[in-house]
Amino acid sequence: MQNKSFKSMQCPVARSLDRVGEWWSILILRDALRGVTRFDEFQKNLGIATATLTRRLDNLVKAGLLERRAYQERPQRFEYVLTACGEDFRAVIWSMIAWSNRHFAPEGPSLVIVDKQSGAWADPVLVDRNTGNPLAKPQYDVAAGPAASETLRLRYPFRSEASGTALIERPAPNQEQ
Amino acid sequence: MQNKSFKSMQCPVARSLDRVGEWWSILILRDALRGVTRFDEFQKNLGIATATLTRRLDNLVKAGLLERRAYQERPQRFEYVLTACGEDFRAVIWSMIAWSNRHFAPEGPSLVIVDKQSGAWADPVLVDRNTGNPLAKPQYDVAAGPAASETLRLRYPFRSEASGTALIERPAPNQEQ
Repeated sequence: MQNKSFKSMQCPVARSLDRVGEWWSILILRDALRGVTRFDEFQKNLGIATATLTRRLDNLVKAGLLERRAYQERPQRFEYVLTACGEDFRAVIWSMIAWSNRHFAPEGPSLVIVDKQSGAWADPVLVDRNTGNPLAKPQYDVAAGPAASETLRLRYPFRSEASGTALIERPAPNQEQ
Repeated sequence: MQNKSFKSMQCPVARSLDRVGEWWSILILRDALRGVTRFDEFQKNLGIATATLTRRLDNLVKAGLLERRAYQERPQRFEYVLTACGEDFRAVIWSMIAWSNRHFAPEGPSLVIVDKQSGAWADPVLVDRNTGNPLAKPQYDVAAGPAASETLRLRYPFRSEASGTALIERPAPNQEQ
């Protein structure tokens, strides 16, 4: 199951998981996002076997989240630098930190997101960039987009990009049978 | 590696992964967030083996993200309903959808987040609830919080909750050696 590929799935969550859906991959990204680039440093932080780390780094390079670059010629040494796509994963990691702090940190947060100038703690919330509204139910929901397969259109109410029609409410899934 | 527990780790990302750090768990949550509650429905959507689904659902119940409730007495049948903690994971899944749409959907998005009233697509961005500022570098960064261990304080610049002092810049990790 761990080696099953979700690449063929159309769902964006499955596509994300295909790239980063392993504990180690997400922890590697977490460290890359705080500036770690070198194999030894990843290994020291994660306490991960050499072969496992090599495989995970290679997968993240293939998935387009990290770029492998030579930083020294003799002997040749490589570092792993975040691509724009990898850098952009920061919002997912930070969402995860915020969620974890709310629910699994009874002793107080061990990591916080701060404004580096003022030192003030940020309170992360996902909003719509266009309106500033927090993205929460019931106002917002996931809908099938224009590239949705038939299966996804059955699971999510479809809405084409062009039309301005309101969403068609589908029956709750547990009413189907 | 898949069975290794990150529970003892203090990092909030590791703690999240301890609860949801398996592909199936995140896909189960994705479906729960669109209203799926019943075993058969999860199984039909995911094409997952019965034993695997049972184990993943049990783990999510133990982790406090789902609650198992009887919805029928004879024969007794159960459904799996999101707890407040599980419901709150929506922001992480939606962040993942937005990231995936930006980078892995060349044919256009198959899922979008929409305002259900107007049908307008949302453009999800993580901001600070207090200021409305987008949470991005270089203005914002992760810092060690008050409950941080010695290890985390070495890895992240520490800032106590009370003091108003600016962050102490640490050397970039790859300069350490």
